[in-house]
Amino acid sequence: MSEKTKILLKEKHMPKAWYNIMADMPNLPKPPLHPGTKQPVGPDDLSPIFPMGLIGQEVTQERWVEIPEEVQEIYRLWRPTPLHRAHRLEKALDTPAKIYYKYEGASPAGSHKLNTAVPQVYYNKKEGIKRLATETGAGQWGVALSQACNFFGLECTVYMVKVSYHQKPYRRTMMQIFGSEVFASPSEHTNSGRAILKADPDSLGSLGIAISEAVEDAAGRGDTNYALGSVLNHVILHQTVIGLEAKEQLEKVDAYPDVVIACCGGGSNFGGTAFPFAYDKIVKGAKVKLVAAEPSACPTLTRGHFGYDFGDVAGFTPLLWMYTLGKEFMPPGIHAGGLRYHGDSPLLSQLVHDGIAEARAFGQTAVFESALVFAKSEGIIPAPESSHAIHAAVQEALAAKEAGEARTILFNLSGHGLLDLPSYDTYLEGKLIDYPLPEENLKEALKKLPQV
Amino acid sequence: MSEKTKILLKEKHMPKAWYNIMADMPNLPKPPLHPGTKQPVGPDDLSPIFPMGLIGQEVTQERWVEIPEEVQEIYRLWRPTPLHRAHRLEKALDTPAKIYYKYEGASPAGSHKLNTAVPQVYYNKKEGIKRLATETGAGQWGVALSQACNFFGLECTVYMVKVSYHQKPYRRTMMQIFGSEVFASPSEHTNSGRAILKADPDSLGSLGIAISEAVEDAAGRGDTNYALGSVLNHVILHQTVIGLEAKEQLEKVDAYPDVVIACCGGGSNFGGTAFPFAYDKIVKGAKVKLVAAEPSACPTLTRGHFGYDFGDVAGFTPLLWMYTLGKEFMPPGIHAGGLRYHGDSPLLSQLVHDGIAEARAFGQTAVFESALVFAKSEGIIPAPESSHAIHAAVQEALAAKEAGEARTILFNLSGHGLLDLPSYDTYLEGKLIDYPLPEENLKEALKKLPQV
Repeated sequence: MSEKTKILLKEKHMPKAWYNIMADMPNLPKPPLHPGTKQPVGPDDLSPIFPMGLIGQEVTQERWVEIPEEVQEIYRLWRPTPLHRAHRLEKALDTPAKIYYKYEGASPAGSHKLNTAVPQVYYNKKEGIKRLATETGAGQWGVALSQACNFFGLECTVYMVKVSYHQKPYRRTMMQIFGSEVFASPSEHTNSGRAILKADPDSLGSLGIAISEAVEDAAGRGDTNYALGSVLNHVILHQTVIGLEAKEQLEKVDAYPDVVIACCGGGSNFGGTAFPFAYDKIVKGAKVKLVAAEPSACPTLTRGHFGYDFGDVAGFTPLLWMYTLGKEFMPPGIHAGGLRYHGDSPLLSQLVHDGIAEARAFGQTAVFESALVFAKSEGIIPAPESSHAIHAAVQEALAAKEAGEARTILFNLSGHGLLDLPSYDTYLEGKLIDYPLPEENLKEALKKLPQV
Repeated sequence: MSEKTKILLKEKHMPKAWYNIMADMPNLPKPPLHPGTKQPVGPDDLSPIFPMGLIGQEVTQERWVEIPEEVQEIYRLWRPTPLHRAHRLEKALDTPAKIYYKYEGASPAGSHKLNTAVPQVYYNKKEGIKRLATETGAGQWGVALSQACNFFGLECTVYMVKVSYHQKPYRRTMMQIFGSEVFASPSEHTNSGRAILKADPDSLGSLGIAISEAVEDAAGRGDTNYALGSVLNHVILHQTVIGLEAKEQLEKVDAYPDVVIACCGGGSNFGGTAFPFAYDKIVKGAKVKLVAAEPSACPTLTRGHFGYDFGDVAGFTPLLWMYTLGKEFMPPGIHAGGLRYHGDSPLLSQLVHDGIAEARAFGQTAVFESALVFAKSEGIIPAPESSHAIHAAVQEALAAKEAGEARTILFNLSGHGLLDLPSYDTYLEGKLIDYPLPEENLKEALKKLPQV
């Protein structure tokens, strides 16, 4: 075993700028439209809930966007993250492939989400904002934003889907440790929450409802803005530290990937990992496959419609140009809660449409099987979301074995699964099932796409 | 901020040998005695449950013990661990002190315990053992041994104290992911378990009972040995990778600690961190304070008797020469379950007795307050056990401020608290209390110390 197990990067070699793929895309997505007028949105439409610093990043076509020193200082608490050579996984699969994984679970929030939470809070603070409101499902994003608000001294209010609030109390506790106020959503704190509770006092909540509450909270107070953990351009921009570091680390061992893999819910994890390699592909003609791994129970990129749709269920957000299953599509309750989103990043959607990136969908029992193989080889218990990327990597490694080729595979392990252990219990007890795609529900949801 | 946040070590600079303090101690502890004959134990007394490789390490006085390459290969999955400069904690405390912490929670088991689990399994495998039995309380040790057995392909059976088995299912799931068989103790699988259950079918179990079950299991099967996570000399030997790496990392930034701090239950975390610095103190006359942080509810080093006592409650183990509160002392149910042990490592006990190391005891509310300050500054949520070391470091930093001196403080953050979040809930809800030391119980327990 000549090559080391972990390829580390010195802090001074951490990227100083984020990579903006809008500078290099052959086709840009069509612009977001105002939900009322159906005209392209301008900065004034967004400024009630976002700071100008982030609105500027949402539209800029500059290739490189400087990372402020204050953000770098916080990044250095856990970045650069290690790149692991998965020697033991390779041996377990008996593959000639070289498998590398970037480990974003090394962040104190336990996932890649902190990479964007920190700059989002920084730009809000810079413009005098005192408080942020957001929603969270299983809690990864809520934890990351809570940590970032704590680092910069902002208040944070998180509307957490009620069923998770009660069933997954660990991440709620993490948010509270960092000083956040966490409400089970629907809550009595907003009009939209009260309306839902009036109609159904026992409502378990949904991400759609929680978004409505957080946006209403932010829009109603001058000192408060809203923050989103995926989908938008600026979010993906911030995540490109992942792929930029990984490229540098692979260079240190004279490696370049044949395939780059990440799981995909709203697209920020995939975009952050793969876009720096998409640059090589678009600009320099590099032959690298970029694979987004999504759940077959919520197959936005592999089964969705390419067109305009709302980002939320209520239809408050701008219309985004993207792959969508329809905002009313109700995905089954898979354990990878972070991948249950009806839409996807417009940037990623466009790249998939143009054939620069591709997507594959997997059922959760196969995903958990690969997660177990990974945990037993490499020691780290992966998050159910990240395990989709592991499964795709395992398939690639087995294909390389079949072909007898020493291909190089890179994937991003976006988070650890230490707070997802009840899902592993379900698997170990033999109770995990694959949900079929609810075809009728999908057909209905696609019928109701907005007319533009 | 001129100095970097994390001081990393290359894999090739990972220690190649463990440090054995027995080579340098001014006085060695008196030898362990056979529980029946009260004569010093020999290898034959231990060989039914330990491999000769570990028995040899228990008694060797060689200063350096080579780390086998097979062990180093597994260590490289997470070692060398980072040394952090706690810039943000220093700022929060407004101290001129430089605070460094070694982060052993970076291991896939989440604590330092994996450092000894791996070599213990290695030496057992080398001598043909197919299966290990052990006990665990809250589960840190059970998780580490499960991972290590999985890496080397040994079977593992863990007797987990019943109350934890039901109240803390997350760590049980981790053990099962790595293929271990986990029994709630007292169990129906051993004579000692059955006897307890016959007398009290509702017994919640205790570490003492679980040890009895694991030892009985190991002694009764030729293919099975027993493994212990702390106290013994070979366990501490393995943990010295922590302090050896930390010394090397501090050298890289031209620093040397005025004080080295670690929490202390059975002593392996403290010994592993501090003994390489004790070498400097004993052999080279370095002026470094070595501080063991223990709970005031179980103050073995600060209030215990120095003499012979059993390691377990039932009195099966050899008599160890150590500080002890008496094996029948019942510590209150503090959240730092890993520090609730009546005795302590004989090596550490001797060093404390000889004034080379010292101990301080803290109540858990003060400890949790410091844990929160740390989490909010550095981002990492610490284990309740490790938070005792944080609290001692905070006190040292404030003393340095008082004195106006830029002292250098090193502590070991032995584990993260991601599976201890219910304890933080108790703190955040204002329900955490300091238990007074049960003085009467202690007096009675000390009266019953064995006569030698």
